[in-house]
Amino acid sequence: MSLPTLFLSSGAHELEAAQTLIQAGQFVVILLIARALAELMVRLRLPAILGELVAGVLIGVSGLHLIQPPELGGELNSLAQGSIATLAHVSSEQVRQIYANTFPILQGVAKIGLLSLLFLTGLESELDELMAVGGQAISVALTGVILPFVMGAFGLHVFFTVPMLPAIFAGAAMTATSIGITASVLGELKVLRTREGQMVIGAAVLDDILGIVILAVVVALAAGEGFTAGPVVKLVGAASVFVAVALALSRTAAPAFDALLDRLRAPGEVAVAAFLVLSLACFAAQAFGLEAALGAFAGGLILSSSKRREAIEKAIQPLVALFATVFFVLIGSSLNLAVLNPFNPANHAGLLMAGFLLAAALLSKLAAGWSYLSKEPTNRLAVGLAMIPRGEVGLIFLGLGSQSGVLGPSLEAAILLMVIGTTFLAPVLLRLVLKDPIEAVELVP
Amino acid sequence: MSLPTLFLSSGAHELEAAQTLIQAGQFVVILLIARALAELMVRLRLPAILGELVAGVLIGVSGLHLIQPPELGGELNSLAQGSIATLAHVSSEQVRQIYANTFPILQGVAKIGLLSLLFLTGLESELDELMAVGGQAISVALTGVILPFVMGAFGLHVFFTVPMLPAIFAGAAMTATSIGITASVLGELKVLRTREGQMVIGAAVLDDILGIVILAVVVALAAGEGFTAGPVVKLVGAASVFVAVALALSRTAAPAFDALLDRLRAPGEVAVAAFLVLSLACFAAQAFGLEAALGAFAGGLILSSSKRREAIEKAIQPLVALFATVFFVLIGSSLNLAVLNPFNPANHAGLLMAGFLLAAALLSKLAAGWSYLSKEPTNRLAVGLAMIPRGEVGLIFLGLGSQSGVLGPSLEAAILLMVIGTTFLAPVLLRLVLKDPIEAVELVP
Repeated sequence: MSLPTLFLSSGAHELEAAQTLIQAGQFVVILLIARALAELMVRLRLPAILGELVAGVLIGVSGLHLIQPPELGGELNSLAQGSIATLAHVSSEQVRQIYANTFPILQGVAKIGLLSLLFLTGLESELDELMAVGGQAISVALTGVILPFVMGAFGLHVFFTVPMLPAIFAGAAMTATSIGITASVLGELKVLRTREGQMVIGAAVLDDILGIVILAVVVALAAGEGFTAGPVVKLVGAASVFVAVALALSRTAAPAFDALLDRLRAPGEVAVAAFLVLSLACFAAQAFGLEAALGAFAGGLILSSSKRREAIEKAIQPLVALFATVFFVLIGSSLNLAVLNPFNPANHAGLLMAGFLLAAALLSKLAAGWSYLSKEPTNRLAVGLAMIPRGEVGLIFLGLGSQSGVLGPSLEAAILLMVIGTTFLAPVLLRLVLKDPIEAVELVP
Repeated sequence: MSLPTLFLSSGAHELEAAQTLIQAGQFVVILLIARALAELMVRLRLPAILGELVAGVLIGVSGLHLIQPPELGGELNSLAQGSIATLAHVSSEQVRQIYANTFPILQGVAKIGLLSLLFLTGLESELDELMAVGGQAISVALTGVILPFVMGAFGLHVFFTVPMLPAIFAGAAMTATSIGITASVLGELKVLRTREGQMVIGAAVLDDILGIVILAVVVALAAGEGFTAGPVVKLVGAASVFVAVALALSRTAAPAFDALLDRLRAPGEVAVAAFLVLSLACFAAQAFGLEAALGAFAGGLILSSSKRREAIEKAIQPLVALFATVFFVLIGSSLNLAVLNPFNPANHAGLLMAGFLLAAALLSKLAAGWSYLSKEPTNRLAVGLAMIPRGEVGLIFLGLGSQSGVLGPSLEAAILLMVIGTTFLAPVLLRLVLKDPIEAVELVP
């Protein structure tokens, strides 16, 4: 069997046809189902990302077996396998092999989507807004990171005898706040420009930065270096320096970037220049011993003060719309729902764990609403609720946790349920607390 | 060695770091060098694509050995291999394996770029302009397809004893007209809206359609079914039906697409809907026994009458700017310049062949300028010259020819030289003939 390549060897026409059918078919299935469910979620005024996750579950290991990583022993379902074999005039066994060989391309594309999403998150960070609500946002962010982390990690370790490393990973995933979901719900309820709104967005930005530093440390720990203080301090130091340099560059490098863009004349220059910064930042982070995810976020942060920011966003958004969707679907597709079947007594511990994680995730972020000082009265319940949704940031932790291999299937499922639960509940509860105005229905983007 | 995946197995942290370094590094090297040379070409008022091809040659098999397909026995150069091994704390042998294993991802991304480019070409086709200059454009297009095909295929077969199948492939590559390069040069010289300009653009659109039908037939022939009339007639029939359906759908399906888009509310809907049409069209073409390339072009043609066309273009352009660049660099990177060394007597036949192809490519398209009837005087020389550049369309033929394995290294090099030569000469000659106005310098897009 040849590898899937652009330049297949002689006589491989049928194999290449089968490969193209599989790849085009994967995009059709993923985009069609994910976006149909995303549209449904938006109409229910829930985050679109929930639809993409559920789509993954429907077509993945726990569903139709149309998309599933070969590493999990997954195979294309036999109907799809047979159809492609017939259309391309190859054997079912060849389809099976080409499917396994081409899956890394889908995963590579998902990785581009994930890194583009983090780049866009960094790019859209309003550092100035963060500065304006300063102290209060910092209190909310720190409480909203430390409390979930401690509750998650120690709770799992003490009550569920989960080993330290996976417990810490789960704790880290609890620290996330989805700035995208929070901002879109607050915007929809027309409270984004209130003091509470600004505080939450400021805290969510800071939370992203803290979370991604924690991520870099935790992933490196998961590489098996164990629990000595030395490497932790070194990694925290490296990550802090990296973010500090990115923040400094966001003040100084963006004008140089703009000047360069002004001089470029070949078409597509914004997309290419932005993607170059993204690639360079990922390379630098990884060369520094940190995660590419941190690099992507820092790359966006560096360009966040560019006067071409809007053009950069427009150029990167299609990559996110297409390929981050693939990323979320792949996350959902690898979820094995069987570990959550309540009728199997072996699953009871896992289910209890999922319940604990969800409760801790809700309470710990809610508490952040009472963690700041304010002379004027503010809606502390709304601030706490707005910090709850883990969304895509929680999923990125989960993806990297699966990848590092430290999480078992039931802990993975519990984390996914925690992410889905918080992402689902936060918008619903926020609307109740803020007395949802009817006309907000029209504001859905 | 594990395959390159998003979900690597436990303890694979260093391998994953090496993979990310290789992938981010590839994007940095490709985009940086390709776009630097593209900028240089634009300043010399030559097509940007020439810079991307030359960049591929510089960093590929014939140059720095930074990017080259493992199938050609190529390996990363030892300096890059050593640097990545040091940064990621893995062995050089592991870097070599990860490089070979991740190369298909780069090729997969290049394929997305190629298909997006063809989709964009179809999307930007002005069917109405084609209708307006009707008969004359058809004469020019038919002459500009039949003459180069016959001169190329029969010339190679008769004078250079090239076997029939590769000779036909080379002939097919000669039929291409780069609508992008032609339109940009004519626009720059401010003659796009003249009768000659409209005729050339109309002929180039028709040429794309004819060329891509020929391509589908030739690639299927290269699959080894030999030279009986049956399959040729069947494939020409299938391809014609496919294009006819696409043309019919471009009148009827676009309004349905627009109505659907108007109802979508989840963000990124234009990019996703357009990419879905692209994937579906590629799947349909391949399932029909034709090329995905024809499907991509037809998908674009179907949406060319959408009232959201501009938004679709904007959403797909970043994919083209990023990933079609990768495609052109990969084409250049696999060129072995050694087969063109004039001091090696074994290469003389190949060089003579390249010279013949270039001369035939120039003369046969030039002749198309005298192939139409016109009551008013028209600049026939300008029409002929404008049809000359093969550009990206010629390269797509070359890429699929390499892939099918029917072309030998010297014929591949000869076709690449023909493409580069025509793409380079056409803008230069056109400027001379049309007495280049000084202010056109400012018009470079």
